[in-house]
Amino acid sequence: MTALEKILPIETEGQKIAKILAAIVFFAAMRPQTKNLLQREGRIQSVPKGHIIFMNEDDAARFYLIQRGWVKIFRETLGGEEAILDVLTAGSVFGETSIFENKAYAYGAEVIEDAVILSFPSHILENETAENIDFALSFLQHISRKNLAKDKEIELRSVQNAAQRIGCFLLRLCKTEQRSATLHLAWEKSLIAARLGMTPETFSRSLAKLQKEAGIHIKGPTITISDIGMLVRYTCTACSNVFPCDN
Amino acid sequence: MTALEKILPIETEGQKIAKILAAIVFFAAMRPQTKNLLQREGRIQSVPKGHIIFMNEDDAARFYLIQRGWVKIFRETLGGEEAILDVLTAGSVFGETSIFENKAYAYGAEVIEDAVILSFPSHILENETAENIDFALSFLQHISRKNLAKDKEIELRSVQNAAQRIGCFLLRLCKTEQRSATLHLAWEKSLIAARLGMTPETFSRSLAKLQKEAGIHIKGPTITISDIGMLVRYTCTACSNVFPCDN
Repeated sequence: MTALEKILPIETEGQKIAKILAAIVFFAAMRPQTKNLLQREGRIQSVPKGHIIFMNEDDAARFYLIQRGWVKIFRETLGGEEAILDVLTAGSVFGETSIFENKAYAYGAEVIEDAVILSFPSHILENETAENIDFALSFLQHISRKNLAKDKEIELRSVQNAAQRIGCFLLRLCKTEQRSATLHLAWEKSLIAARLGMTPETFSRSLAKLQKEAGIHIKGPTITISDIGMLVRYTCTACSNVFPCDN
Repeated sequence: MTALEKILPIETEGQKIAKILAAIVFFAAMRPQTKNLLQREGRIQSVPKGHIIFMNEDDAARFYLIQRGWVKIFRETLGGEEAILDVLTAGSVFGETSIFENKAYAYGAEVIEDAVILSFPSHILENETAENIDFALSFLQHISRKNLAKDKEIELRSVQNAAQRIGCFLLRLCKTEQRSATLHLAWEKSLIAARLGMTPETFSRSLAKLQKEAGIHIKGPTITISDIGMLVRYTCTACSNVFPCDN
């Protein structure tokens, strides 16, 4: 052991995993022995942008937790087009519901911004769900929250026009106590467009409309919202929630 | 007891409920004492078209099972527009996930075709979930299936154009072994349009497009599909499933 290691003991991968799991509510109701197993069998990996973690219908041997970065959840149509179902970041768990879905993933997952991702064998999750009712109940809460988010997505895709959908996306990035905001969009515009279920052309046209009608100003990846209240009035009439919303 | 009752014993409401529950997979893993409780506390009601069973955010004291008819699941935006999240028929359970959602309904439910609906106190469901791990697991399967259906809805709303969405809706009504089909649309066109997330005007325009490009013929509420294969080629390239699909 070097002098430095005496002062700053080097963390093992298992200890790192234990620390990360302790902060994520999805794992909270698991029994200690299961957490130990996850710690031993878990892997932490740095995954570069563009890497496909798995494809739709692949055998679901593992489930995943994002520690850092962004992951896109998608399906490909027979015609080769891509539908983005969700875009996830730190703290999100994915591939976990495959244990109820014939043990195959129901979607693909691709890293869209350099990421650090943990993965665990699915059979540990399956056994814990079958043996520990407290965890099964917390899993029900977890899926139920996902369900609500999907309902909200379907609602917004039904009633918001493209400009309102972009407005909604921007408002979710604003801190609620602000009256104005400057946002830096980290994703490529084509990705935001796909996430919002529109073509890049519609995205550009609608952004221009927002600029004219809702007082936002765009310069490259930087968007300035001079009056959040004005954007709220423009956007949130086409939603069942009141701003600020949490889903 | 009359002579007739001796030959045809009159079924009590409890017996009717028991018979209905026995056929629905959602209730299969419940313990016998819970089924008895549901039988005692359940209600069967005939509900006319237009009746609102509950609204978004109402206290969720009961959950529901459709025996006959159709129910629309919806949300209203602040601007007064309606988003249809789903349209359910016989065998569907709704309001059941509210036990995980602060005991309030996350959507409204309205009868859109005269219906017979069973309802049960939510606390019976809540207790059974907390005490019987077999039922908790089957509830997880149930929510997971709902999740997949919502993913499919988001996928289709992302990649299908309006005409393909109508084509998809029609194909789901076809029997797979047919080469052609004649369908009678029971719902009003405005309702189908809303269910598919489009305005009535877009619906009419897209139906005309389908008539021209995918060989369907429309006369009032009757739609004739002369070549199902042609409609499949037109529609299913914008989907990740192969026809016939089950979700």
